[in-house]
Amino acid sequence: MNHYQARLEKIGDWMAEEGISLVMFEDTEGRRDASIRWLTGHPGDALLFLAVEPAAEPRNGDASTVSVSPVCKSLLMPWDIILAKAYSRADFIIPYNEFDRMPRKAIRGAVEKLKIPFGSKIEIPPVTPYPVFLDYVGELSDFDIICRDRSAASHALDMRTIKDAEELALIRKAADVTNAIIGLLEKNVRSGKIKTEADAALFIELESRKRGCEGTSFETLAAGHDRSFGIHAFPSWTSAPFAGEGLSILDFGLRLGGYCSDVTLTFVRDPDTQQQKMVNLVEKAAKLATEMAVNGNETRALAAAVDALFSKSKKRMPHGLGHGLGLDVHEYPFIRNRSDYNWKLEPGMVFTLEPGLYDPVHGGCRLENDILMTETGREILTEARIIWL
Amino acid sequence: MNHYQARLEKIGDWMAEEGISLVMFEDTEGRRDASIRWLTGHPGDALLFLAVEPAAEPRNGDASTVSVSPVCKSLLMPWDIILAKAYSRADFIIPYNEFDRMPRKAIRGAVEKLKIPFGSKIEIPPVTPYPVFLDYVGELSDFDIICRDRSAASHALDMRTIKDAEELALIRKAADVTNAIIGLLEKNVRSGKIKTEADAALFIELESRKRGCEGTSFETLAAGHDRSFGIHAFPSWTSAPFAGEGLSILDFGLRLGGYCSDVTLTFVRDPDTQQQKMVNLVEKAAKLATEMAVNGNETRALAAAVDALFSKSKKRMPHGLGHGLGLDVHEYPFIRNRSDYNWKLEPGMVFTLEPGLYDPVHGGCRLENDILMTETGREILTEARIIWL
Repeated sequence: MNHYQARLEKIGDWMAEEGISLVMFEDTEGRRDASIRWLTGHPGDALLFLAVEPAAEPRNGDASTVSVSPVCKSLLMPWDIILAKAYSRADFIIPYNEFDRMPRKAIRGAVEKLKIPFGSKIEIPPVTPYPVFLDYVGELSDFDIICRDRSAASHALDMRTIKDAEELALIRKAADVTNAIIGLLEKNVRSGKIKTEADAALFIELESRKRGCEGTSFETLAAGHDRSFGIHAFPSWTSAPFAGEGLSILDFGLRLGGYCSDVTLTFVRDPDTQQQKMVNLVEKAAKLATEMAVNGNETRALAAAVDALFSKSKKRMPHGLGHGLGLDVHEYPFIRNRSDYNWKLEPGMVFTLEPGLYDPVHGGCRLENDILMTETGREILTEARIIWL
Repeated sequence: MNHYQARLEKIGDWMAEEGISLVMFEDTEGRRDASIRWLTGHPGDALLFLAVEPAAEPRNGDASTVSVSPVCKSLLMPWDIILAKAYSRADFIIPYNEFDRMPRKAIRGAVEKLKIPFGSKIEIPPVTPYPVFLDYVGELSDFDIICRDRSAASHALDMRTIKDAEELALIRKAADVTNAIIGLLEKNVRSGKIKTEADAALFIELESRKRGCEGTSFETLAAGHDRSFGIHAFPSWTSAPFAGEGLSILDFGLRLGGYCSDVTLTFVRDPDTQQQKMVNLVEKAAKLATEMAVNGNETRALAAAVDALFSKSKKRMPHGLGHGLGLDVHEYPFIRNRSDYNWKLEPGMVFTLEPGLYDPVHGGCRLENDILMTETGREILTEARIIWL
């Protein structure tokens, strides 16, 4: 059994438990969902429908009823059929075009193709806009349409927090390439070969592809000393000078076989007292957060500890402490000081820790590395660092 | 009055007509809306709230009631407050952090700050997921929450189909830089300086920034002769050879002052009969579509004509014929052969025309240019072409 099949069956089990006959996943321009790639290998722009036979009600007192995994059938509707045939596994593949690229028609087509019985429960994605929800309900008035946060889509996101062996292999590869590039970036900034934001960003673009990556996992943020004050520099990089006097931030990630890395380096040259203080605090925060990355600890505790550390020095971090990494560059678990975002750390989780401080005058400093929780503790996958010039 | 104020007032007029006291716009990771930039200049990651005094009911028989534009107040809640202060105009700016980056708390905060009377109509974005909609309704039970397709957000999108003078100036600049780069790309491919997909993509990244662009308007698609079969090549570019024997596609766009260009070139070298036929058909389709770009014509008619042309040769285009361009690289008007997407062409509209054909064996060919409708006809802003090597 390949890993796509194993993942599909887990969703199928969940559907059977919930009594849901059909679920829809959507990965389109306005509503991205990498779970379609996770479940089928298809890299983007598609609808995915999963159908199971509803689980038989256990007969009263009949101990012979054996729990059998339900059969889960998959129907992929890709925008690009040629790409789908090259990359994806699904029981059925029908071009989205056959339904005029209209979700309403597509869901009706899935109901027919997968022979969903009238009256069954059909779950649509929890991100479905309210007006579109009403539209589906109108189209499928003979069915019971469900749209809620706790969904197959959220179940897939929860499952994706614990990476399987196939995923870890790709994440490790992405981290290795990232580390090689970090080394070269430091060398080339020191030698003066990288002088501008553009030099740094283009170097990453090219070297990552040469080493087998699909590309960067987000637009590289190269903010030279004049504009490192922004959390996410805008524009993301320019031909302005980089790594001159003060603080320069380089935040980049790679994507390999779909899986993301995400690191931030800060380059420091002749810092003033304020800058020196910010850098020291950020390094201290990174050390503290990393030490607290222990199985069983709560993610919120890490974020709260860093917030407390900064606030002792009357500083405030204007963003979360970190986020999960996988097929998405931002996924669960989120490492934030918020009661509604809290996870217990477990083996197989991969996430960033990225304390940062920003000042309109003195610029910004951020240090971000990727952590993998293992059975025996933690592993720091990446080698981002403060680079003193 | 600056152009942001002029745009805000038009939304304010619409709100007063609809009897809506507060509207919310959302531009966040899962739900992008460039209208916040259009209305305030803020380049990304924020909520925007607009409030108007409800229009006074005209008194019966009182001819002296003069229609006065309602006062429209804007409250921006940016993720990055430093960036907001540098780029945006709004009556009030409060960091999203003050509401713990929670939309529920933020909308409650806006109601209080803008003193929205109990019982008023409050409109949330039409892309609000159904479960989140329920959440807002719970939070604001003293108000009348509206979430529908025909909304302030859609009204802004409709207004954005007709570009104003400030927008046209930026679009023309983006097109000029695009044309300069097209010329250099042709020259460098012919001379052999550009040999790989990476060479082409990185050249565009660098040259666009040197010429004042914020960057590319989407990930450049450079598909060499071995993989031009996909509508959108995956990965978008690699270090594979480019512009060898057969068909190679280069689809790129630039962003300048927020505004996008979007063009596609096809490079042809020693084509076989099939490839030659595809290229001829695509060129014919581009000519036909461009000639039909006449004020008053319906966008659907253009797409239908191209579909008919291809189907006479037993070919089928697996994507739409074109799309509007502006702050978004895909916006209204869409040029598709679908009854639910139809616009009458009008002066001020800017859109692409991009016929293409794809074959798993012979590869693909697409030709895409950007068209501006003017009072006197049409103007082809860009100079993309089939390049014979």
